[in-house]
Amino acid sequence: MLKKRLFTPGPTSVPEEVLLEMATPIMHHRTDEFIKIASEVLENLKYVFQTKNDVFIIASSGTGAMEASVVNLLSKGDKVVVISGGKFGERFKEIATAYQLEVIPIEPEWGKKLAPETVKDVLTKNKGVKAVFGTLCETSTGTHFDIKSIGEIVSQFEETVFVVDTISALGAVPCLTDEWKIDVVVTGSQKALMLPPGLSFISVSEKAWKKVEKSDLPKYYFDLKKYKKTLAKSDFPFTIPVSLVVGLKKSLEIIKSTGIEKIWEEHHKRAEATRQAAIAAGLKLFSESPSDAVTAILLPEGVEGDKLVKILRTKYGISVAGGQDKLKGKIIRISHLGWQDEFDVITAICAVGIGLKEMGIEIDIEKGISVARKYLFG
Amino acid sequence: MLKKRLFTPGPTSVPEEVLLEMATPIMHHRTDEFIKIASEVLENLKYVFQTKNDVFIIASSGTGAMEASVVNLLSKGDKVVVISGGKFGERFKEIATAYQLEVIPIEPEWGKKLAPETVKDVLTKNKGVKAVFGTLCETSTGTHFDIKSIGEIVSQFEETVFVVDTISALGAVPCLTDEWKIDVVVTGSQKALMLPPGLSFISVSEKAWKKVEKSDLPKYYFDLKKYKKTLAKSDFPFTIPVSLVVGLKKSLEIIKSTGIEKIWEEHHKRAEATRQAAIAAGLKLFSESPSDAVTAILLPEGVEGDKLVKILRTKYGISVAGGQDKLKGKIIRISHLGWQDEFDVITAICAVGIGLKEMGIEIDIEKGISVARKYLFG
Repeated sequence: MLKKRLFTPGPTSVPEEVLLEMATPIMHHRTDEFIKIASEVLENLKYVFQTKNDVFIIASSGTGAMEASVVNLLSKGDKVVVISGGKFGERFKEIATAYQLEVIPIEPEWGKKLAPETVKDVLTKNKGVKAVFGTLCETSTGTHFDIKSIGEIVSQFEETVFVVDTISALGAVPCLTDEWKIDVVVTGSQKALMLPPGLSFISVSEKAWKKVEKSDLPKYYFDLKKYKKTLAKSDFPFTIPVSLVVGLKKSLEIIKSTGIEKIWEEHHKRAEATRQAAIAAGLKLFSESPSDAVTAILLPEGVEGDKLVKILRTKYGISVAGGQDKLKGKIIRISHLGWQDEFDVITAICAVGIGLKEMGIEIDIEKGISVARKYLFG
Repeated sequence: MLKKRLFTPGPTSVPEEVLLEMATPIMHHRTDEFIKIASEVLENLKYVFQTKNDVFIIASSGTGAMEASVVNLLSKGDKVVVISGGKFGERFKEIATAYQLEVIPIEPEWGKKLAPETVKDVLTKNKGVKAVFGTLCETSTGTHFDIKSIGEIVSQFEETVFVVDTISALGAVPCLTDEWKIDVVVTGSQKALMLPPGLSFISVSEKAWKKVEKSDLPKYYFDLKKYKKTLAKSDFPFTIPVSLVVGLKKSLEIIKSTGIEKIWEEHHKRAEATRQAAIAAGLKLFSESPSDAVTAILLPEGVEGDKLVKILRTKYGISVAGGQDKLKGKIIRISHLGWQDEFDVITAICAVGIGLKEMGIEIDIEKGISVARKYLFG
């Protein structure tokens, strides 16, 4: 009888009506019925991406779409800039390195801000950079990057495209793809899109498509030219996970009927309430530029973070994420993504207080809950 | 009120209990609860693969696992043999070519048998071939290849590994991975495993793993070394489609409790009944070596196959597949994969007769049905 609640930054909870939609009989992917659904999904994705560009759906985790951005945009020996302020920024470096590209890293300390001008300096000093890779929300540290300002800068460099990993952020925080001049946006299904994992998405601007046409890196499954060929017919080059697409239709309907601005606002409210509560309770935030998608809370000295995560999960059914790599054991991360409401915030804060108390750490959780309650409900 | 029935060779029908299992609340992939499920799934996959080798799960369509076999086993400039007797054999050629490997094709005419000795001749004449790629059931033509004999031949060549695409066949027809000396077996979720599309699988022998360790082709998402690192903990390098894995647990339970030999036998019965019925009704089989996974029926001269497929689908809710590429319009393909029984065979045969009749083609469908009924029910 343990009720389970997901506060992990992916997978996130999926609305019951989406789960049930996916439990309807399997369709063949080349029937009129499915093509109609796919066509609606492809259109509604543009709304969530805030773009007029094509959005492609790939059957893979988000990392697959990250790799697709690298292998489709670049050519052998190309020079790229990777902004890496955490584990997922690192991943872009690793992928680019696997394809033997020349990587110029910009590496703000984990949890720290990046001054957008840094990107301008690097692009000015290093001629011929073909792409800049950034992250909207660095999930490992809960850090928001000023993608809007960086987009403005990159757009001034004619031969450089801007690629943004928005895996844990798209649909949760504003990402105005076209307005912010982001050429390629990459995301995944198991975050704010309120679906199980299994689909990734990538939007490609005209400027970026010119690079796709010239790219000579080897690829097959992730070759976007194949996806482009079938896109006009709302078809896919390889068998698409039909049940996930059927679920996506439903979740995009929920998002669209709510309105994306309203959804961003709700994520902001949940995140802000969590931040205020944590501080009021005597805890510290890890990031100096916290994202509204996920809040990273620095644990008091001496607290074993992994133990706290375990207590909350096994005893209370509450899944939060611990720290990764160099942050292992030092932080916990509470996601605000997707299918959550204000009461879930109160639950999460309450649970953290209970867990810490069991570990012998007293924080002022009453004050934390009170602050959140007032902020959320007035 | 149109009841829909899938006779397409993927996606196939998914049992209701598997659909509902996937509609239970989403789990995080790094919880004890999920790891226990993954561990059971990984073990039961070995049973279905009939192997002691590791089986890896990838979030992709079957083509992703095909690409994984190429990029993990081979190195720059390697020479490979591809047996290609249809659209999916072609795909291995395309992937190998995308990575600039030297491809020696063996190309039996579509629908024709391949004498295993041909492979021996080619390997003897061409020294230094690193891998032979084959297909257990060529879905585009409904053709079964004698993988057992080819496996015996390839195993005699020390530096050559044998890779088999069993995407539309594994779990439907015998595939004795270890006994037949197949080094790498590739398959997908949406066929005999009775799941929606979204997962692919690849098993790797020790002989093949040595090649993986030396491979220098660029890769990241499909890099099996990353999957190997997390396998012992039943974990995955990238977020796995948790709901599909939860469904897979259920479908593998069904397969295991039925017994794989029994399931092969049932597929054979359904396929044989379909073949006998088609012939009795006056139709011809396309393949001279028909697979028990899917039956390709040659349509009478002048019949537009795509029109027949459309009539059956829109008017009767029956999805069969048409022909692809050079077989477009000329054949229909009826799958026997997965969640089907004897009555489904009668339904499929009956539907073909009705569809053809509507198109003005009279076949002796009474005789077809009668032959099938007697064969199936005695």
